[in-house]
Amino acid sequence: MSLPSVVKVVGTGLIGTSIGLALRGKGSDVVLTDPSPTTQALARDLGAGRFARPDDDPDLVVVAAPPDVVAEVVAAELVAHPRAVVTDVASVKDGPLQALRHGGSDLTRYVGGHPLAGRERSGPVAARADLFVGRPWVLTPSWESADEAVAVVRDVAVALGATVSVMDAVDHDGAVAVVSHVPQIAASLVAARLRDLPESAVALAGQGIRDVTRIAASDPELWTQILAGNSTAVVRTLRGVHADLTRLLTALDDLADGTATGARATIAGLVADGNVGQARIPGKHGSAPTSYAYVVVLVPDRPGELGRLLRDIGAAEVNLEDLRIEHSEGQPVGLAEVAVLPAAEQRLVLALRELGWNVQG
Amino acid sequence: MSLPSVVKVVGTGLIGTSIGLALRGKGSDVVLTDPSPTTQALARDLGAGRFARPDDDPDLVVVAAPPDVVAEVVAAELVAHPRAVVTDVASVKDGPLQALRHGGSDLTRYVGGHPLAGRERSGPVAARADLFVGRPWVLTPSWESADEAVAVVRDVAVALGATVSVMDAVDHDGAVAVVSHVPQIAASLVAARLRDLPESAVALAGQGIRDVTRIAASDPELWTQILAGNSTAVVRTLRGVHADLTRLLTALDDLADGTATGARATIAGLVADGNVGQARIPGKHGSAPTSYAYVVVLVPDRPGELGRLLRDIGAAEVNLEDLRIEHSEGQPVGLAEVAVLPAAEQRLVLALRELGWNVQG
Repeated sequence: MSLPSVVKVVGTGLIGTSIGLALRGKGSDVVLTDPSPTTQALARDLGAGRFARPDDDPDLVVVAAPPDVVAEVVAAELVAHPRAVVTDVASVKDGPLQALRHGGSDLTRYVGGHPLAGRERSGPVAARADLFVGRPWVLTPSWESADEAVAVVRDVAVALGATVSVMDAVDHDGAVAVVSHVPQIAASLVAARLRDLPESAVALAGQGIRDVTRIAASDPELWTQILAGNSTAVVRTLRGVHADLTRLLTALDDLADGTATGARATIAGLVADGNVGQARIPGKHGSAPTSYAYVVVLVPDRPGELGRLLRDIGAAEVNLEDLRIEHSEGQPVGLAEVAVLPAAEQRLVLALRELGWNVQG
Repeated sequence: MSLPSVVKVVGTGLIGTSIGLALRGKGSDVVLTDPSPTTQALARDLGAGRFARPDDDPDLVVVAAPPDVVAEVVAAELVAHPRAVVTDVASVKDGPLQALRHGGSDLTRYVGGHPLAGRERSGPVAARADLFVGRPWVLTPSWESADEAVAVVRDVAVALGATVSVMDAVDHDGAVAVVSHVPQIAASLVAARLRDLPESAVALAGQGIRDVTRIAASDPELWTQILAGNSTAVVRTLRGVHADLTRLLTALDDLADGTATGARATIAGLVADGNVGQARIPGKHGSAPTSYAYVVVLVPDRPGELGRLLRDIGAAEVNLEDLRIEHSEGQPVGLAEVAVLPAAEQRLVLALRELGWNVQG
């Protein structure tokens, strides 16, 4: 597996700069361009590559531009570099492909891609060479794509540590509508209800709504582009949500009026459907979610206490599978929920109690 | 502040048994009853109290029955113990109050309550004496409630470590509709979309949908009771969600048809509203969310590696504010995102790098 010698990265935000950092680390000559001179200079200063020269002849062009200009930029790069394979990293794949086909681009050299490696922070400063390690990277070649072009992009994604899969562009867009775009919408709509709520009511917010709305902190402009770019697939999934919500509203309205026939069955059915769907989300390593034992420890909120707990857990030589810290409201105390394999639960509980921790099992 | 000498707990599930454990620890004589002899015996064996005797004369009765029978049980206890203050722990407050008033109960001795202390597990086995430490406990006295009755319940909640607040029953129900019941519905509806999704699409699920749908694993029967019991307030909030969703669907439909006028502004506006709402959710100690620095460490998924990292963080004497472990898909590696105060970031990064950890800043 040989990597391309010269790679041009168009758009040096989080993803583009991370690709530059990673490929330079593997010996490629990386050329950086961005419409913002500041962003471009920042990416270079961070070590992601060099500025362009007039005689650059890249083997691969990676377009990491905002979703609404991807097709246009890919088309221009295919023309500018008639020898190069061109890929992109946009989170929506069918729209750009159709636009390129419609525009008469040479699709033999284009292979759509989507590394699922977003972070809560954006921009070149948040970039990391290992951003793609262990993350899915979907390739969406069209029937026109040459096998050699697909191989070039696949080799890069694999070299960057990603888990590569190949999907049809339409299937990809349907999948991300369900696992990414509709959850984003749900989080935003729930969070929006908090806007005008009295302070005393907001104070009752617990871990549940905190989890449901975490991604509601996302950038409105970027998400407008993503949702607009995937409107067909998002609408399809959202219609299902809308229909369920309408049924639920009718059922709850009937109950409020005292005229409930089958309303409770409707509600229970919707929650049960959620149980089934939730259980399908893969755990670590893409396997079925393992059933962990949870050990709950009371942690006084003084500097060093959580650190001391973590040190003590480490010393007990128990392998932590997950750790959740529950924030408490108005009290100087926190709860740490430590997930371990069931077989290790008793050992950890005993070890921590021996060290004076307030452990509930 | 003196606690009641004799407390009767009606319903020995998670909450009732936890109250029993905590009050016994404070010296109260706790009487346990539950319609299920097995559950009742289990609570006693766990140390939460003793069985009832014919001559029991409790000072306080805590009704911890399922939401749909609370009013009926409270009414019976008010009659059975004409001297006792009666409270309950149901997550819906106005319906039971109206039912009691309608039924002619002696409301001077009734004080509604709601400790927000659910866990992912239920039943007496999951009970803990410290379940309420640092958690909100809302009291919803009516105008009929005697001041002394309110004081009795408040003292118990404070003694159990909760943060007590007083709200009108209707305001309480409106608040939990927004911060608890509607998020639950959103999680279930999003998770339900995964039910019939192909495996290859489910494999793209990342941390976002994992967070949004975590609470979708909840019990359908319990949630049917909660949503039915709070149908008026839930419908009010859900109508807002439904209206926003309908507007969003129209906007996305327009975009899919290519007839978008103002559609993008509608989408961006909804995401921006979510930003504002999400930012209001309190962080630790009920204060505004602090801005933490995030240190990202690559953790090989071998037994002991995460433990070793936690030990090393502890040894660096940095106070952890939060820790998130990102599950990777199909790769034997994980990412630990360690949140610390910005002032401690550099120190932690240097200390971990010195110990050979792969740290991104």
